[in-house]
Amino acid sequence: MNIGVLGAGQLGRMLALAGYPLANRFTFLDTTGHPSAGIGEVVIDTDRKHLEAFLEKVDLVTYEFEHLPVSLVQAIEEVRPVYPSSEAIRVCQNRAEEKALFDRLGIPTPAYRLVEHADELEAAAQELGCPVVAKSVTEGYDGKGQAVIRDPAEAHEAWRAINHPRLVVEAFVDFVREVSIIAVRGRDGEVAFYPMAENQHVDGILRYSIAPLPDLDAGVEQVADGYIRALLDELDYVGVLTLELFQCADGSLLANEMAPRVHNSGHWSIDGAVTSQFENHLRAIQGLPLGDTSARMPTCMVNVIGREGEPAAILALPDAHLHRYDKSERAGRKLAHVNLLAPTHEALLERVRACAALLPDAPAPRFSFE
Amino acid sequence: MNIGVLGAGQLGRMLALAGYPLANRFTFLDTTGHPSAGIGEVVIDTDRKHLEAFLEKVDLVTYEFEHLPVSLVQAIEEVRPVYPSSEAIRVCQNRAEEKALFDRLGIPTPAYRLVEHADELEAAAQELGCPVVAKSVTEGYDGKGQAVIRDPAEAHEAWRAINHPRLVVEAFVDFVREVSIIAVRGRDGEVAFYPMAENQHVDGILRYSIAPLPDLDAGVEQVADGYIRALLDELDYVGVLTLELFQCADGSLLANEMAPRVHNSGHWSIDGAVTSQFENHLRAIQGLPLGDTSARMPTCMVNVIGREGEPAAILALPDAHLHRYDKSERAGRKLAHVNLLAPTHEALLERVRACAALLPDAPAPRFSFE
Repeated sequence: MNIGVLGAGQLGRMLALAGYPLANRFTFLDTTGHPSAGIGEVVIDTDRKHLEAFLEKVDLVTYEFEHLPVSLVQAIEEVRPVYPSSEAIRVCQNRAEEKALFDRLGIPTPAYRLVEHADELEAAAQELGCPVVAKSVTEGYDGKGQAVIRDPAEAHEAWRAINHPRLVVEAFVDFVREVSIIAVRGRDGEVAFYPMAENQHVDGILRYSIAPLPDLDAGVEQVADGYIRALLDELDYVGVLTLELFQCADGSLLANEMAPRVHNSGHWSIDGAVTSQFENHLRAIQGLPLGDTSARMPTCMVNVIGREGEPAAILALPDAHLHRYDKSERAGRKLAHVNLLAPTHEALLERVRACAALLPDAPAPRFSFE
Repeated sequence: MNIGVLGAGQLGRMLALAGYPLANRFTFLDTTGHPSAGIGEVVIDTDRKHLEAFLEKVDLVTYEFEHLPVSLVQAIEEVRPVYPSSEAIRVCQNRAEEKALFDRLGIPTPAYRLVEHADELEAAAQELGCPVVAKSVTEGYDGKGQAVIRDPAEAHEAWRAINHPRLVVEAFVDFVREVSIIAVRGRDGEVAFYPMAENQHVDGILRYSIAPLPDLDAGVEQVADGYIRALLDELDYVGVLTLELFQCADGSLLANEMAPRVHNSGHWSIDGAVTSQFENHLRAIQGLPLGDTSARMPTCMVNVIGREGEPAAILALPDAHLHRYDKSERAGRKLAHVNLLAPTHEALLERVRACAALLPDAPAPRFSFE
């Protein structure tokens, strides 16, 4: 089967690496002019004239990037199966839709308001209690279109800076840690859940994900599984879905946002799980049985950002698995990740620190259970 | 780094899948006109006019097939580093050279004779005691150029059938099982050994490999490690080397043959070892540190030959990892393999039997330790 992927970055690359053993072939549609998948066939479509040629080559379409015009995905659905559906993209790329869905399904979120005017933004900041964070409802990606408001008086300036007709304003959450739950749903409705990961972000960029968690209450994991299952079923979703959450001191979870695709916080599964998120996404969208999502061992994913360091030194670490994206170095750019495995969390943290010491500019790893 | 691979079959495909995460790119040189790697760039060179173009694209050359003209590999060595060296190819593609090397290094083999005439073949059959197997010293591959002689009187007929000026005649060995040891040697001389595998062949084609072995005496494994280390050091070898052996009832080992490359009996390592034979071959030839060769769990590789069966049924087996080569079905053709993992050998054998039941024409799995 030839799988068409909208987007041609490292997520597409890793999908393809998981899919060749399933006898899949891959064709990527790149609209940026800078594809980096480095594998399979890439159709460059900067002038929006090559969609038909792309679709002729593929049997099935998926994506590695959700900030796509919904109309484009709907048009593709007319001629080829698309998983996950355009409806998943429509909801996930709009924060207002996403919050409404969370509310409808009883998935708790940080307190929020929707505003369409600078005065409303000021009132929301007043009401929710500063600091608050204001985000444009669409096109947000990697911290763009966002502003932190520390005093309601800053609201008008933030409104101008974001420059978008509709914002979501969120109260800050006093969380203990950021976690994510990744699940996969097959065409037949079967669902499998990966163990929850704890994620450490710095400046809005994921740096570390560790799974499974040594101190996670089974009840909390069940709650998270219930939230994501509700989302999957409601959207009649096919493929991998990621839900990022905050965990509070009392153990409760608040949904932050979701991504309708394989996710950086699931890269640990390539080496650490019986079946990776990439393989399971491909199994799901092809109607194949889902693979076992359990972890083989405590695993930590370390992102390599901006500069690569010395790959040979990383490969010399015990049970270290380097995944380079074959991209040139640039500040803030995701260039690679390293999966580290160890029989215990204690041994794992030692390896993570040893790995971080080899990476230029890597922040100190800090996990809530240390 | 762009790695040039001589040959473009499934071994090259699996090398590439292991090498993309190391930021390698791959160019294959195919001289058959039927490349099946299905990944990377393939230079088709059926008219022997494209070698220069191939070499211009690559930084380093390795191979997935050792039946290459030594002069070709020597010519390539003049312009690019080649690992393993042409000397390894020269020895491994000639049974007489290989036996001489085993003898020189004190590696025991089945009793054998070299013959250059039908009368000498008859005398050897008489001396060694029938049955014996006669093999042409070069170009043997997958049982071609071989004959079993059950009576010295058959010698002249066998000589004509094989039609080669020089043969190796080997006594039959009363072995308990066929095993293989795979090791990897870095550019700096560092050596790492995979756990020994037991191999089940049917009609000269590998069907099952299982590793590690539950009943292997540590002393025997050390002996095998010693044999392959002697070969690696003698040849100043860089990369993965495979040595196939017979194990006799008293535990002793007799070398059968070696292959200067990644090997079908090492495919279990993709899912069952900390670092696969493919990744370690690439690490070695690039001068990178070798990865841990130990097994995560008892693992069995099941070859899928001739017909593929139903991939969905295979994927539904617990801890089953399907590796399809994206080739069309043909009797005797290696189309895919399945790696099965289990916490115990007992549980593993159950999974192997379940898998075999899903494959058309798969022989019953039989292991010496059952």
